[in-house]
Amino acid sequence: MDYDNTNPFARILRGELPCVKVYEDALTLAIMDIMPQAPGHVLVLPKEPAAELFALSDEGAAACIRTTKKVAAAVKAALGAPGIMIAQFNGSAAGQTVPHVHFHIVPREGAAALLPHAAVPADGEQLRAIATRIVAALGG
Amino acid sequence: MDYDNTNPFARILRGELPCVKVYEDALTLAIMDIMPQAPGHVLVLPKEPAAELFALSDEGAAACIRTTKKVAAAVKAALGAPGIMIAQFNGSAAGQTVPHVHFHIVPREGAAALLPHAAVPADGEQLRAIATRIVAALGG
Repeated sequence: MDYDNTNPFARILRGELPCVKVYEDALTLAIMDIMPQAPGHVLVLPKEPAAELFALSDEGAAACIRTTKKVAAAVKAALGAPGIMIAQFNGSAAGQTVPHVHFHIVPREGAAALLPHAAVPADGEQLRAIATRIVAALGG
Repeated sequence: MDYDNTNPFARILRGELPCVKVYEDALTLAIMDIMPQAPGHVLVLPKEPAAELFALSDEGAAACIRTTKKVAAAVKAALGAPGIMIAQFNGSAAGQTVPHVHFHIVPREGAAALLPHAAVPADGEQLRAIATRIVAALGG
């Protein structure tokens, strides 16, 4: 998958599209997924432009997993989730829908089915309410 | 999930159980999953004992994603896979079956269904043949 700097995550990183942010540092941004597979579904993006993990620098990848670890702990605490799935898709054949690397943080409760990937828009008010709880769990 | 140093991955890391290794460095080990969800399914383990991502050091997490990136590129090349899924499960509610952090690298071909997780043992000869191709793609 080739990088395209008009993709929605590139536009969010440039401030051209809104997002519900839960965390940001020099190298990464964590936002609520607007079509979540479960309540509390967060995306971690590197600020570095890279379509797939293979194109991301080691520094960018390390920053992503550091942020993912930190935010996933907060999602687990905020949602009281017994399980947390981390997923990162490379290529449309793997389910990637936006050509900018992103790590999914998805709360799991065992056999409970996930919603389909990138399919069902969330209620904005509910997204912001969950984000507030995650930010609080991050100590922010 | 609590750490238990008799878990199979701890025993593999201590050399007490066999594995089909594709890559190793000071901080990580990459092995063929013996119950693969698709041909070419590889697991990346930190050598550090940690049950879930939350318990892993930032250094260990960075080492895991660096190895995952490197080995995933080799899996993609060796298998000719159009897509690569990276997944990491925390807690049995998320599908974690072994209490030692591991990153799954799974080749994907779009709508092709995956085999169930940790369910169907692979043929050993086939696993070793695929591992040989991945090691070759790693330049090893």
